[in-house]
Amino acid sequence: MSVLVVGSIALDTVKTPVEEHTDLLGGSTCYASVAASFFTTVNLVGIVGDDFPTEHIDYLRSRKIDLAGLQIVPGKTFRWSGEYMWDLNTRETRSIALNVFESFEPKLPGGYERTPYVLLGNIHPNLQHHVLDQMKRPRFVIADTMDLWINNTREELLRLLTRVDMLILNDSEARMLTGQTSLIKAAAQIRDLGPAYLVIKKGEHGALLFGPEAQFFSCGAYPLEEIHDPTGAGDTFAGGLAGHLAAQDHGSVTFDTLRKAVVLGSVMASFNVEAFSLERLRTLTPADIEERYQTFRRMSQFEVPAL
Amino acid sequence: MSVLVVGSIALDTVKTPVEEHTDLLGGSTCYASVAASFFTTVNLVGIVGDDFPTEHIDYLRSRKIDLAGLQIVPGKTFRWSGEYMWDLNTRETRSIALNVFESFEPKLPGGYERTPYVLLGNIHPNLQHHVLDQMKRPRFVIADTMDLWINNTREELLRLLTRVDMLILNDSEARMLTGQTSLIKAAAQIRDLGPAYLVIKKGEHGALLFGPEAQFFSCGAYPLEEIHDPTGAGDTFAGGLAGHLAAQDHGSVTFDTLRKAVVLGSVMASFNVEAFSLERLRTLTPADIEERYQTFRRMSQFEVPAL
Repeated sequence: MSVLVVGSIALDTVKTPVEEHTDLLGGSTCYASVAASFFTTVNLVGIVGDDFPTEHIDYLRSRKIDLAGLQIVPGKTFRWSGEYMWDLNTRETRSIALNVFESFEPKLPGGYERTPYVLLGNIHPNLQHHVLDQMKRPRFVIADTMDLWINNTREELLRLLTRVDMLILNDSEARMLTGQTSLIKAAAQIRDLGPAYLVIKKGEHGALLFGPEAQFFSCGAYPLEEIHDPTGAGDTFAGGLAGHLAAQDHGSVTFDTLRKAVVLGSVMASFNVEAFSLERLRTLTPADIEERYQTFRRMSQFEVPAL
Repeated sequence: MSVLVVGSIALDTVKTPVEEHTDLLGGSTCYASVAASFFTTVNLVGIVGDDFPTEHIDYLRSRKIDLAGLQIVPGKTFRWSGEYMWDLNTRETRSIALNVFESFEPKLPGGYERTPYVLLGNIHPNLQHHVLDQMKRPRFVIADTMDLWINNTREELLRLLTRVDMLILNDSEARMLTGQTSLIKAAAQIRDLGPAYLVIKKGEHGALLFGPEAQFFSCGAYPLEEIHDPTGAGDTFAGGLAGHLAAQDHGSVTFDTLRKAVVLGSVMASFNVEAFSLERLRTLTPADIEERYQTFRRMSQFEVPAL
């Protein structure tokens, strides 16, 4: 089955202690769509200006991502510039130019409204609502969010939580949203707000998955020696997760499918941070994914199953 | 097989944001010995003053811990007092009175020198050396340590690393010892210093196990809702780990046995922090341990093994 991915498309300037690159392909839609495309077909919804390089469009199309939902309008593409500190864990936004993204109204082209899986990438909750308003009973809706929306558009976000099956956010955002220091308590509180499933990302410490009936899964992080650019890690995580779910659809989403989806999201994110922009994903193969997935299995296993 | 446990025995005063208790049974030997005693027989080595309550000695003996190595000398027992901050993650030592512990010279009683498994609890590296000097070819030696020894007795600690099979320390200590921010690089560097195996504890984020040939295991932390007293978490972790290893001895220690030992260490630590001092361990049953171990299995598993 297909997954619909909506979010931002950007040209990023990224500075790390070691390197700086300008006008890189970025934005939550791009990272998430490309990650999901390793598992299933993707319907992309986003907006770019007429300065958006044709090569990027060609690349997305080469990933068999449907671009009927890509609006190309007069003006400049959204630009973001950020700098990572020495440990690559802290990031400062240096500049944001919304440009054409400011007037983005995600309009679904015909056929998209019945896409069974929906990933609402990290954008303003009202845009996420607007997409859901156009959908016809999707099977599973995942929303990503960030501190900006928790702080500035809390009401809209809370209303969104009643409309989604899964929320993805990081540990500091879960604490910010609930005022709870214990992630276990924060998770229970967020699930009470609506989503049956919740993923709390913990960066280098992995991710936690919470579900109904106290179901719980703890996923370790892949032990990377070298991180070159953390940009898009959360988006590739969400994209890989959603892509696997859609690909595995057997009529319903089970907690066991979700466990594996969280691992595959982690696998995709672990590749993504190995290079700037989407560079690592460009050369990634299904065999690479399978190999790292098996490494995850080995590193998490502590009892050889009885035969 | 048995495990020899050496370390401190203390009467602790512990203050959390909620409660304060004085003269609690504590010290690395007590926590580690009691945790290990759920899995195997323990030879304890430690020192107390003649003020040490008989009830504590009776309790240790009731756990079938051999106390031939317990020195009871005139004077006062080691006292430690600490306070935990609001999130229970930061701790301040309020006072230390070494008392009889200052003149502690761990002397092994006859028979102890052939104990196959050795856990050198968190004490001055020279005392750890002194124990090893008396041992006859132990099968597996584990050393615990802390920031104090890394900073103040670095040479003695580095020399100890050439004499042990496994080192246990926490993430900040691994970074402090090596100057590496990446735990993967820090682990490689520490293993180069001697120990074939290394455990890096990450508090609420679990623990990492490293071994020869890039063997790696990532253990999640048990999702506790309420932590009452983190004192002794590291010691019960080490004790549970060492106890399981000794109990499972089949002639050699394998990486698979170590994986399970790390999980059982985490299980023991997760119980210990549920109450002050060793209170939770006093009521703990093998069935409790088995139940939580199965919870760990479920929360870490992401692919139902093919039958």
